[in-house]
Amino acid sequence: MPGSLVVVHVHVRVKPDRVGDFRKATLENAEKSRREPGVARFDVVQDAEEPTRFVLVEVYRDGKAPAAHKETAHYRRWRDAVAEMMAEPRSSRRYVNVSPDDPGW
Amino acid sequence: MPGSLVVVHVHVRVKPDRVGDFRKATLENAEKSRREPGVARFDVVQDAEEPTRFVLVEVYRDGKAPAAHKETAHYRRWRDAVAEMMAEPRSSRRYVNVSPDDPGW
Repeated sequence: MPGSLVVVHVHVRVKPDRVGDFRKATLENAEKSRREPGVARFDVVQDAEEPTRFVLVEVYRDGKAPAAHKETAHYRRWRDAVAEMMAEPRSSRRYVNVSPDDPGW
Repeated sequence: MPGSLVVVHVHVRVKPDRVGDFRKATLENAEKSRREPGVARFDVVQDAEEPTRFVLVEVYRDGKAPAAHKETAHYRRWRDAVAEMMAEPRSSRRYVNVSPDDPGW
């Protein structure tokens, strides 16, 4: 049975001297985003070989939740704070969950 | 505080006529992999725009767990079953968790 969650992977590459700043800003955004009712998970991982690369793994409960996330004060603060830390424009891909089913996230 | 989990993203592109077969084989592998003691999460997502693309998001509790996973009967069965379904060799990236901390997975 296909899932109905919206999973977004955001790929980021930051300037080498801004890795610590990016981690700090993103940690705060993740903790606040996790409290949104439309957010099932909001995970942040750092590349083991290239520490300037990160992926934000955002799992939303429905199709309206990603837009609601972008309206929050914490998202806007994060977006503005990290803008000058980027080494290249970030890119994102959108997925649907295959496994586990919706309640497993 | 940096996390200590090993997060592996496996990127897969399957032949268009094998999407259903791949989903079925991968669903079974995910359900069994989740029961391994070294596996914290084992998620499978399908690209919303290109349904031949999948990502396996595998979260291991320590550095030994990925190798232990590859020793299991269910992994080997999956690997052999999906070999002929691939449209291109799969690729993987290894990450460490930034957020949440280890217990949050």
